Amino acid sequence: MNIDHLLSANAKSMRRSVIRDLLSVANKPEIISFGGGFPSPDSFPIAELKQIMMDVMDEQGAAALQYGSTEGYVPLREEISKLYKEEGLDIPIKNILITTASQQAIDLLSRIFIDPDDIIICGLPSYLGALQAFWAYQCQPYGLRQDDRLEEAVNALVAAGKSPKFIYAIPDFQNPSGVTMTVEERRNVIAVAEKYDLLIIEDSPYKQIRFEGESLPSMYSMCPERVILLGTFSKIFVPGFRLGWVVANDNVIDRLIVAKQSADLCTPIFNQMVAARYLKSGKFHENIVKIKELYKHKKNVMIKAFEDYMPEGVTWTNPEGGLFLFLNLPPQYDTRELFNIAIKENVAFVIGEAFHCDGSGKNTMRMNFSYASDEKIIEGIKRLAKAIRELYDRHS
Amino acid sequence: MNIDHLLSANAKSMRRSVIRDLLSVANKPEIISFGGGFPSPDSFPIAELKQIMMDVMDEQGAAALQYGSTEGYVPLREEISKLYKEEGLDIPIKNILITTASQQAIDLLSRIFIDPDDIIICGLPSYLGALQAFWAYQCQPYGLRQDDRLEEAVNALVAAGKSPKFIYAIPDFQNPSGVTMTVEERRNVIAVAEKYDLLIIEDSPYKQIRFEGESLPSMYSMCPERVILLGTFSKIFVPGFRLGWVVANDNVIDRLIVAKQSADLCTPIFNQMVAARYLKSGKFHENIVKIKELYKHKKNVMIKAFEDYMPEGVTWTNPEGGLFLFLNLPPQYDTRELFNIAIKENVAFVIGEAFHCDGSGKNTMRMNFSYASDEKIIEGIKRLAKAIRELYDRHS
Repeated sequence: MNIDHLLSANAKSMRRSVIRDLLSVANKPEIISFGGGFPSPDSFPIAELKQIMMDVMDEQGAAALQYGSTEGYVPLREEISKLYKEEGLDIPIKNILITTASQQAIDLLSRIFIDPDDIIICGLPSYLGALQAFWAYQCQPYGLRQDDRLEEAVNALVAAGKSPKFIYAIPDFQNPSGVTMTVEERRNVIAVAEKYDLLIIEDSPYKQIRFEGESLPSMYSMCPERVILLGTFSKIFVPGFRLGWVVANDNVIDRLIVAKQSADLCTPIFNQMVAARYLKSGKFHENIVKIKELYKHKKNVMIKAFEDYMPEGVTWTNPEGGLFLFLNLPPQYDTRELFNIAIKENVAFVIGEAFHCDGSGKNTMRMNFSYASDEKIIEGIKRLAKAIRELYDRHS
Repeated sequence: MNIDHLLSANAKSMRRSVIRDLLSVANKPEIISFGGGFPSPDSFPIAELKQIMMDVMDEQGAAALQYGSTEGYVPLREEISKLYKEEGLDIPIKNILITTASQQAIDLLSRIFIDPDDIIICGLPSYLGALQAFWAYQCQPYGLRQDDRLEEAVNALVAAGKSPKFIYAIPDFQNPSGVTMTVEERRNVIAVAEKYDLLIIEDSPYKQIRFEGESLPSMYSMCPERVILLGTFSKIFVPGFRLGWVVANDNVIDRLIVAKQSADLCTPIFNQMVAARYLKSGKFHENIVKIKELYKHKKNVMIKAFEDYMPEGVTWTNPEGGLFLFLNLPPQYDTRELFNIAIKENVAFVIGEAFHCDGSGKNTMRMNFSYASDEKIIEGIKRLAKAIRELYDRHS
C-alpha cells in the first residue's frame, strides 16, 4: 500500500542518515571503517557489569523489571549529581531527567521548542543526529563556521524576523570536527544568547574523555538558567544501555517530562539500576582513566599514520579528546568521489558534507579513531592515502 | 527563566497524564491502588533472566553493550516472527521493527502521519498513552463508543473535509475498558478503512493474555497491507526492558526507521539479546500460561468482591483477558468526586474521564486487577464500596 498521501509534513521533512546509507556498503569484513562512532569494545567493563547485573537481580529483582518513573531512577540521578559536584557544580536531582540516551534528549528538546520553519543555530559542521532531529520537526538549521561572527549572524536573522530558538553546540571535541571551543568563545555564545533571549543546548558526550590539555568550564556552569546541558553514558560507559540525561532549569525539565511520557514513558529501569551501581562502585572513574589512555594512544597512532602516509595538501584537526577528527582535502576535491575510490581500496569514512546543514564541506571527511585496532588504523590510513593519491591523479 | 514564549505549538498541545497527577497522591503505603497498569511482580521470571543475562555477558560480551541497529536485533525479530507463525501468520523480519516499547511505536506513527488538526478515530474510552501521543502532534482524536456506527461517523467527517488519517483500536481486552471487539466488528473496521482509504493501528499488548474464551483473529491477519500491528513484551515478559515492536508493510517500516533514527537511534541491544534468548528457551510460553492463570484468578477475586460488596447501581465489564476492567456508576455521579473520598478511605483508581478524548465518561473508572495481592484486592474493593456509598449519601 502506498502511504505517501497520508504522510505528515514532519515525515516529508525527515532526512535519511547519509552515514547509514554510505556505511551500508562498508559492511564487509575486508573493509576497515573509520565511519562509525563506536567506542572501543576494549573500553567496556564486561566482568564488572556481569557481577553488578547479578547483584541487581538478587537484591532488586522484580523492581528492576517493572515500569520506572518518567524522570528516571533516583539513585542514578544522585550519582549524576555527584559527578557534577566533582566539577564544582551543585545540581539537585529535580533538574536531572534521564533520557533514552542523548539522541532522545535532542529529540524531546526539538519537540518542545521547534515549530515548522523555526531557525536554530548550529555549527558548520555539526552532529548529524542532531540535524536529523531538527529536520524531523521541519526546522531550518542555520550553520556557522567557527570563525563566523555569531552576534552579526543572529542580529541579521532577528532583523529579518527570523529570531532563532536556540544555539546548539558541542563545545568539547566536537563531533565531527574534534575541535574544542575556547573559554572566550563559550562566553561569547552566552553573551549573544542573553542579548537576544535564546536558549543554548550544550551537548556534552565527550567532555570526560579529555586526554590532553586542561578541562574547560561548561557553558552550563557559566549560565545555568539559559543553558540546557546534555550528558550520556554512551561514550564513557556503554552505548548499548541507551542512557543519557538532561540538566536544565525547572521549566524545561517540566516540559520534557510531559514530552517523554508520550515518547516512551520511561527509560529501562534495569539498565538504570546497573548504571547507578556501577557509578557508585568507583570502577566508573577507573575505567575513564583507561578510556582516556586508550583513545589518546589511538589518536596518536592515527596522526602518526597521517604524517607518514598522507600526500601533500591533506590537513587534519588534532583533538585533545573525544572519538573523532576531521580531515580536509584541498578545496577543489569532493570526498564523495573519494569515498567510491576508498571503498574499492577497502577503507571507509564519512563524507564531511553530511555534517554541513548548508551542503558545504564537500572537501572534508570525518575519521573515528576509537574503534579500530592499532594495526587496522595504520593499514586503513595507508589505503586511504592511496585512494587520495588516485583522486589527485584523476584530476591532475 | 521563563520559556513559554519559546515553546512550540506541539509543546502547548501536549497534555499531562491525569493518571500520573492523580496517582501521585496515591503514593502512600497505606493506599491500595488499582490505578496503575503494572503487571504482577509474581509474573517476572527473575531466576531464568539472571541466568540468561550471565550467558549473554559470557557469550556476546562487548556486542551486547555496543550500539545496535535501528531496525532491531535480528534474532529477536526472528523470534517475534516465530510467535506469529504460531498464529498462522507469515511475517518476514523486514516487516518487524523493534521499538523502545509500544509507547514509542505510537509516538513514531503519530510523527509520520499526523499534521496539526488532523483527525484520527479512537475509542470512547481509549488508551491514555496513545491519546497523549496524538495530542503531542496537535491531533484531534475523534472518539466513538462501541455502539456508535463507524461508517456513518467517518462518512460525515469526510463530507466535512476532515478525512481521518487512521483508526486506532485495541481489539483484545482493551485498556481501559477490558472489552474485546467481535470478529464482525473487526471486519467492519477493515471495510470502512478500505472504503475511505484509512490506515488501522491495531494495538495489541494483551492478546496473548486471554484467560477465557477463544482467541480471535487479529485485524492484521485479515488485512496486512492496511493494518499496522503493535506488540510489546511489557505485559507478557517484563516492562522494565522497554521492548515493543511494529509489524507493517514495507513503506510504513521504512518511514518508521527514519523517524526512529532521530528519536533514539536504537533500542538497547543488551535488553534485546536477553529477550531473544528468553523467547528461544521456551520458558516464555510456560510463563504466559502462568500469567494467564494468575490474572484469571485475580480478575475472579475482584469480580467476586464486586458482587459481595458493591452497592446497587454499580456495573462492571467482565474481561476475558488483559489487566483491566471498567466500573460504571449511575450516570449522575462523577468519579472525580469519588476519587477524593476513596483516597481518604485509602484506595485509588483512575477516573474514566481520563480515557475519553471528548471529556465524557465522568461516571466511569478503570480498575487494574493484575498488580495487587488477593487480600489487597478484597480489602481495596471493600473500601471502594464504602466510598461509593458515601458518594451516594452525599447526593441523596
